[in-house]
Amino acid sequence: MKASLMFGAGDVRVVEVPDAKITAPTDAVVRVVRACICGSDLHPFHSMPAGAEGRPMGHEAIGVVEEIGSAVSHIAKGDFVIVPFALEDNTCVFCREGVHTSCVHGSYLSGGQAEAVRVSQADGSLVKVPGVNEHSDEALLASLLTLSDVYLTGWHAALMGRVEAGKIVTVIGDGAVGLSAVLAARQMGAEQIILMGRHEVRTDLGREWGATDVVAARGPEGIASVLELTGGEGSHVVLEAVGHMPAYEQAYGIVRPGGVISRVGVPQYESAPVGVGSLFGRNVTLTGGVAPVRGYIDAALPEVLEGRVNPGKVFDVTVGLEGVPAGYAAMDAREALKVMVNPSL
Amino acid sequence: MKASLMFGAGDVRVVEVPDAKITAPTDAVVRVVRACICGSDLHPFHSMPAGAEGRPMGHEAIGVVEEIGSAVSHIAKGDFVIVPFALEDNTCVFCREGVHTSCVHGSYLSGGQAEAVRVSQADGSLVKVPGVNEHSDEALLASLLTLSDVYLTGWHAALMGRVEAGKIVTVIGDGAVGLSAVLAARQMGAEQIILMGRHEVRTDLGREWGATDVVAARGPEGIASVLELTGGEGSHVVLEAVGHMPAYEQAYGIVRPGGVISRVGVPQYESAPVGVGSLFGRNVTLTGGVAPVRGYIDAALPEVLEGRVNPGKVFDVTVGLEGVPAGYAAMDAREALKVMVNPSL
Repeated sequence: MKASLMFGAGDVRVVEVPDAKITAPTDAVVRVVRACICGSDLHPFHSMPAGAEGRPMGHEAIGVVEEIGSAVSHIAKGDFVIVPFALEDNTCVFCREGVHTSCVHGSYLSGGQAEAVRVSQADGSLVKVPGVNEHSDEALLASLLTLSDVYLTGWHAALMGRVEAGKIVTVIGDGAVGLSAVLAARQMGAEQIILMGRHEVRTDLGREWGATDVVAARGPEGIASVLELTGGEGSHVVLEAVGHMPAYEQAYGIVRPGGVISRVGVPQYESAPVGVGSLFGRNVTLTGGVAPVRGYIDAALPEVLEGRVNPGKVFDVTVGLEGVPAGYAAMDAREALKVMVNPSL
Repeated sequence: MKASLMFGAGDVRVVEVPDAKITAPTDAVVRVVRACICGSDLHPFHSMPAGAEGRPMGHEAIGVVEEIGSAVSHIAKGDFVIVPFALEDNTCVFCREGVHTSCVHGSYLSGGQAEAVRVSQADGSLVKVPGVNEHSDEALLASLLTLSDVYLTGWHAALMGRVEAGKIVTVIGDGAVGLSAVLAARQMGAEQIILMGRHEVRTDLGREWGATDVVAARGPEGIASVLELTGGEGSHVVLEAVGHMPAYEQAYGIVRPGGVISRVGVPQYESAPVGVGSLFGRNVTLTGGVAPVRGYIDAALPEVLEGRVNPGKVFDVTVGLEGVPAGYAAMDAREALKVMVNPSL
């Protein structure tokens, strides 16, 4: 089958690989109907050392179950399913506590940008979507695909940030996760949503989804703008959807005393300011992490199926498998917001 | 009047200074009935550069109002009051949001280890205690004194850590704040309370206040012990009452995925690990900060007055003003847990 492999920074190729197959009784193989490229895929795209062995790329997918292992009982061949980026048994103590990304049998989906993908812990991970198939409405498929990661990662940011009615929320980053965080914050009743981003096409979607203000400036100027928009008091909640240190510094610069910084951009740093001068002195809470999306899919699914939210609007480009390398380049150049992959093209 | 001044590391002296007096219409002067030495006073006691000008010490006190400024209306001369370590107007937006330590008119009490002390923002800061005077029961006075800082700082740790019934809580540090955090966690219904500390007299008080387990080991061995006590899963909540980096490292070593680290030990570092390997990867929340005790006094006062809690047990030594320098030395040498100062001795 064809699959996308990364061989080093800037080097994604679509190559012939052995067919995805069952390797454990709890596995399933899913034929990929739609996959996509994630903002976090750009981190290795910038920094991965070159090597002879390619890394299978892609951790977001929807598709049709082609084969199941002997221990799989909740999912059957032919089911249309959402594949969350983090795989889990959905029964262990951490899954029960809502931290599916720390499942004791957990792993991450690998190789979704391909014709088919092996899914471990299929019973716990896969979510069947009745009444949908690969010929369903394109916008619906796009929104279902966002439930594998991007939309629910934005949701996680807002939930961990304790967004609620009356709160001032600032979202740092106008990528697909940042825009999803705007949408989630709106649903949770935020009063004012300030979106920090400089790409007008993206911030326009942010406005459509509920951003009340857009701040294009960064650094000290960006901090000053947000403080001005909040009467000098700062933001109750900051949703950080970038992962680089300047975004973190921005976050503690604009958060209000007693406020919350909720991060979902994968940090490209290990240490950061947390002392008296940044967090402690003003009782700022730092939260967030790798989103346990499996725990959110059941509640989000009817919202998508019944059209009350349309998170699939983050996709602005669709490619076939052969177009994946160009898709990475387009996202890296910020020519595309988020690239969907349709292996049947 | 006599007051305690610090002239540099290890150098506290009791000297004659001008009497405390009103300098703003919102001030009051309080004759100190009891004051105390705080664990955080030991930080400058270790590191303050020597200088000719002494720093007035002491930020915890109870006493009798001697004089009020012309704008003070809620407090009268002769009132017996609790003086919180952080002073505030108790009306600004941040006070209303419960972050009194970020009050727009806020400051910290300075010079409590003295015969009298000037209190700014007296109306917002001071809490009148009816029916109590300097001749009241010694244990009651001790417990009232803890409402100016130590007990409610422990309370803040537990509250920000979202301690509740069924949770496993680990407290790092067997100082007076750590022990107060044990007491608070117990009141909030924690199921298991692990106290990390190596001073048996202190950990015995911790057990009396609700600690179910005591771990004397530190570092990797301490982490292993806590993990073992929690079935390998870790602690839902970690209350960090030390402020040094090894305590922080211990905290993220023992916290459970999805758990909370709540810090009230004043961090003696600015940067610390917060990335994928420490907090982000396991959705660990970092919270806490300088405790806004003013917001907690009203609710805690009846608990103390009616004897349902006795947080004053943290005091194991009482000195007169002349004994303050020896009190610092005793706390520094860990011969005393917490030293009370009675200027009338």
